Amino acid sequence: MSLWKDYPWVRDGLHKIENRLKYEVNSRHRVIRDILLGLVEAGGKRLRPALVWISGEYSGAPEDKLVPMAAAVEILHMGTLIHDDIIDDADFRRGIETTHRRWDNHTAIFAGDYLFSKVFGLVTDNSIFQDAVRTAKVFRLICEGEIEQYFSRNRVSTSVRKYLSRIRYKTALLFALSCYLGAALGDISDREKTALRNYGLHFGMAFQIQDDILDITASRQQLGKPVANDLSQGIYTLPVIYAVKYSKEREKLLALLKMGQLSEENTCEALEIIKSSGAVEKSRELEHKFIKKAEKDIIVLRDNKYTQVLNYLLEYLSDGYRR
Amino acid sequence: MSLWKDYPWVRDGLHKIENRLKYEVNSRHRVIRDILLGLVEAGGKRLRPALVWISGEYSGAPEDKLVPMAAAVEILHMGTLIHDDIIDDADFRRGIETTHRRWDNHTAIFAGDYLFSKVFGLVTDNSIFQDAVRTAKVFRLICEGEIEQYFSRNRVSTSVRKYLSRIRYKTALLFALSCYLGAALGDISDREKTALRNYGLHFGMAFQIQDDILDITASRQQLGKPVANDLSQGIYTLPVIYAVKYSKEREKLLALLKMGQLSEENTCEALEIIKSSGAVEKSRELEHKFIKKAEKDIIVLRDNKYTQVLNYLLEYLSDGYRR
Repeated sequence: MSLWKDYPWVRDGLHKIENRLKYEVNSRHRVIRDILLGLVEAGGKRLRPALVWISGEYSGAPEDKLVPMAAAVEILHMGTLIHDDIIDDADFRRGIETTHRRWDNHTAIFAGDYLFSKVFGLVTDNSIFQDAVRTAKVFRLICEGEIEQYFSRNRVSTSVRKYLSRIRYKTALLFALSCYLGAALGDISDREKTALRNYGLHFGMAFQIQDDILDITASRQQLGKPVANDLSQGIYTLPVIYAVKYSKEREKLLALLKMGQLSEENTCEALEIIKSSGAVEKSRELEHKFIKKAEKDIIVLRDNKYTQVLNYLLEYLSDGYRR
Repeated sequence: MSLWKDYPWVRDGLHKIENRLKYEVNSRHRVIRDILLGLVEAGGKRLRPALVWISGEYSGAPEDKLVPMAAAVEILHMGTLIHDDIIDDADFRRGIETTHRRWDNHTAIFAGDYLFSKVFGLVTDNSIFQDAVRTAKVFRLICEGEIEQYFSRNRVSTSVRKYLSRIRYKTALLFALSCYLGAALGDISDREKTALRNYGLHFGMAFQIQDDILDITASRQQLGKPVANDLSQGIYTLPVIYAVKYSKEREKLLALLKMGQLSEENTCEALEIIKSSGAVEKSRELEHKFIKKAEKDIIVLRDNKYTQVLNYLLEYLSDGYRR
């Protein structure tokens, strides 16, 4: 993958992790197996397993524990993606096409649950107790973050603090955990483990903010999914919050948002207001602050190829790699 | 509860477990908290936690670990119930009323996931590693059982073996785990732990067979849910399997089942054929065999009030307590 073209040792690690992923989703039931295998083969950047791998290599962790642990965090991530994709009553009322979906709701639930059960097997098998406790806690906080986001829909807020808290739970903690689990499998100081964990946390915060910015700014072709996906579901992320706070046209924007189901025309209008309010620039500033925090976090680490790639990842993020 | 009227020490244990359940479902998010608290307060026989308690008391387990472990198995059970209740595409096409449901699909997913995350926190916090591994494994097998059942819908089978395998995964293993976890927290021999575990397994098999019989034989008032609920969803349980094997009217029955969505009239006709085929009696015989196995399992245990209540539970089951 072009992301890792200068880091063959990361690519090699990810290759092993990929094979482990395929092995782990191999349910005895053919339909689930095919679905999950398809999901794995659809690919992804595998950032979370990459962080487990990099942190683990830094700390001298044994490969036979690092690979399953890396697979575990990606499986946890996949499970949450599947469960997020559930079609709801409201969607049916809106007449949302369900033909694109390869499975129905029950299958999606079961597939996600199956993946979650795999995570705990993998973590308990390959690490110390405390790490299993941590993983359980992060899973719970991810759930709370998703719940928080779901119940905040259509509620216009100007609280950046609340948004940051939500994405911390929903996204950043899993990145933090990925770094931590890799580090904890090896033999480094608590200070270094904490440094890596905080790097993951701040990386994750920046990552999610960028994802939310792209939802507002990118075109359909770039994203591979409908534009303003969040907006259309009533999920108001950082750029929307800033626009409501600072736009001269905030009353117009609020009126549009209060409409609930935005038509394509209204969505475009809302996006225009957001983009011309300076909200995107402000969001990028905040994203940049988190990238800077992540940089600072790993200053205490030894300077070697592992920390180099961690810094490279921050550059990659900074360059808006998906833009 | 009248089930435990002669066993105040079990009632006391369940009271502590109930309080722990309420404490554990106390999410920071009000909507989830209200839903889960409502679910806990709606009650239930709490057989799984009761088995944790009884096995634990038998083995001299410390209460401060027994209570959370008992709460854990009930929470796992609750999570699977919530996820089972998901409304699907097919249901929408059938125009199934969703007003009775207190929550939409997303909320149900999140609530279930939240509960599952709680389970792993509780088990890892209160037992040895091996028990966390076991719990993860049982959760996975429950998922596989649910998946198996879901993908066997509308498929008429005459395989009693497949049915038994399915209910073993779906239901009996959690009862087995409940007995095991309680026992493992105390200080008894492996032989006794295995005896209790097997008791749980066979108890669970009998329990599910009875549940499946009742779905065919009971009236709406008795069950508190529509009759032939399984049948209407295309889930063919033991009595249906026996009827297809042995009924003189098997061709008629097969023709009815192949219709898929059974009308009320066709459902009644199918039920009549099943009931007059001797399938219910055969199912009760098999249920009874498992009850006998459970009786035999605990013969090796010391004769005391704990084993007495385990035998009492088998009698209670035998008497078709819900009939």
